[in-house]
Amino acid sequence: MLLEEMLDQIHPLSVSFDAAAQRHLDSLTKPQGSLGRLEELARRVAVIQETIPPRLGAKLIFVFAADHGITEERVSAYPKAVTAQMTQNFLDGGAAINVLARHYQIKTEIIDVGVDHDFIQCRNLRHCKLRRGTANFSRGPALTREQARRSVELGIQLVKQSVPEALFLLGAGEMGIGNTTSAAAIVCAMTGAAPPDIVGRGTGIDDETLARKITAVENGLRINFPDPHDPLDVLAKVGGLEIGAIAGVIIGAAAFRLPMVVDGFISSVAALVAHRFSPHVREVLFASHLSAEKGHRLVLDELHLNPVLDLGMRLGAGTGACLAMGLIEASVKLSREMATFASAGVNARLS
Amino acid sequence: MLLEEMLDQIHPLSVSFDAAAQRHLDSLTKPQGSLGRLEELARRVAVIQETIPPRLGAKLIFVFAADHGITEERVSAYPKAVTAQMTQNFLDGGAAINVLARHYQIKTEIIDVGVDHDFIQCRNLRHCKLRRGTANFSRGPALTREQARRSVELGIQLVKQSVPEALFLLGAGEMGIGNTTSAAAIVCAMTGAAPPDIVGRGTGIDDETLARKITAVENGLRINFPDPHDPLDVLAKVGGLEIGAIAGVIIGAAAFRLPMVVDGFISSVAALVAHRFSPHVREVLFASHLSAEKGHRLVLDELHLNPVLDLGMRLGAGTGACLAMGLIEASVKLSREMATFASAGVNARLS
Repeated sequence: MLLEEMLDQIHPLSVSFDAAAQRHLDSLTKPQGSLGRLEELARRVAVIQETIPPRLGAKLIFVFAADHGITEERVSAYPKAVTAQMTQNFLDGGAAINVLARHYQIKTEIIDVGVDHDFIQCRNLRHCKLRRGTANFSRGPALTREQARRSVELGIQLVKQSVPEALFLLGAGEMGIGNTTSAAAIVCAMTGAAPPDIVGRGTGIDDETLARKITAVENGLRINFPDPHDPLDVLAKVGGLEIGAIAGVIIGAAAFRLPMVVDGFISSVAALVAHRFSPHVREVLFASHLSAEKGHRLVLDELHLNPVLDLGMRLGAGTGACLAMGLIEASVKLSREMATFASAGVNARLS
Repeated sequence: MLLEEMLDQIHPLSVSFDAAAQRHLDSLTKPQGSLGRLEELARRVAVIQETIPPRLGAKLIFVFAADHGITEERVSAYPKAVTAQMTQNFLDGGAAINVLARHYQIKTEIIDVGVDHDFIQCRNLRHCKLRRGTANFSRGPALTREQARRSVELGIQLVKQSVPEALFLLGAGEMGIGNTTSAAAIVCAMTGAAPPDIVGRGTGIDDETLARKITAVENGLRINFPDPHDPLDVLAKVGGLEIGAIAGVIIGAAAFRLPMVVDGFISSVAALVAHRFSPHVREVLFASHLSAEKGHRLVLDELHLNPVLDLGMRLGAGTGACLAMGLIEASVKLSREMATFASAGVNARLS
């Protein structure tokens, strides 16, 4: 099975590269440590790649779109049809993710993993629909266990196919009206947190809708009773197809030792799912930003990840990952292109 | 006089563009406000330019180099010669500012405003030396009042000459061993803060050097007694030539209504000087990042500026400004290139 095969390939990273990467950074013409977190970013890429200075290469973000049956409970500010409409917008290049990907020269792949719509003659869409959206998880399981597994394996497969492209940074984003409800349910199932502490306002819902959203999550957990120690069970019972696919991309990134930039709340929850499959996945992860969505901080804390940016964003789709990729690429260029004290003839510290 | 002429041209910005710019952002295919601070950045550029959506254009950072007589008090971890050596490194393209400027496609101009070194046959250096570094301000005034004025007017002149280049974003950085000591003295002189609360570790000094640095600032304030209400007096008595020049760039940016990206601690202190000349300068300023240097937060609070990034950097030279320019440019592209709900055929909110 592809999932188990990949999990077997994930090993802890060698810490010896960390000190060597820092020694290299300390040889460059700047006071030691003065690039702050940019040094940490460059060092972590070096450790993942086992290369000093780290290599540059292609940047790729997978954007998965899927629908959610939980929208029947009126948990979103937008109608379900917006999932398909925004996916079309991605294909037409008019969404925020498209603008940012162009700005940062990041390749994007848009994947239909479960939209309740037939995309006809969309050549730049990857057609990987596993089903037409999840079932309403507040009344029964969202997916079968087999469908959950297939969503994860789709993400892994996409990474596997992309490895020959000399990838430098990998990312993932999503589009799915209702998916903050599913993501909140996963967090509660896996960490034991109470729904009112995790369920947030998503695209910007009012108090009434928020109350319905909390109830939907509570009902979903009570009815399905997902096993917190079985990530595939949680994903099947209260998850989503795009969340499973992103978890798969993360597992693939860890297996192939590719630096993986995590986007916002949904992607971080997918990272939590991947982390429950194998705790070492976190060693290849970079948290791009702290989302304004309520539960995000707790999820990042569970993963021991410190976000690079805090811009009050709550859009998803890979937008935060784009911004962080720009900074990570800058950090690697600093590591590669700066002169050393010796090469530039600059005096070292007095003491 | 150029300084007074420019100060006369600085007027408060029209707030009416702020609401119109937000309405435009709200028409784009994303939940309202979901781009967080990126929306604030795009909106502020629109207000400064009085253009919706805001225009793109050239990005330019002036990097001023100058020496400081206060280094005689052994306040830095590096010898004074490093100012000239690092300036040469800038000219050779090997410093962090060069790498980041290339990454973000920012033009840089390196200006010798007061290095104690003769740069020979350096065609890409602007030779504007006003004197060979400041005098040791712990024993007397750093500059004459006339020299302080000329440093500010140099900065203004450079902006004036660059206006025809269709500038989008302006920035400034500096190199000057000893300049965190001068900057700390300016802050204390202007705000009344106590030196131990402002003087920081700069390039990374030990406890003994920090004690000498605090004493140097205390002596400088006691001996020179700068007038907090007279920014030219403060600049002359405890300032530096590169700090004056950056203050001039900021005054020029405000006079010509150009968005101005403030770098780290030194540049923020220059912004404080400019702000004392005219409080409206802050309306064109963007604080790029929160430096690890001790006094930076207080200076930004004085200016009511909220930094975009917090990466623990403490390098200066315009490096933080580069990173923020990348984000500001991204925010403007979002504002210009995203589809609207109407153009993309995406349903609006349910309520």
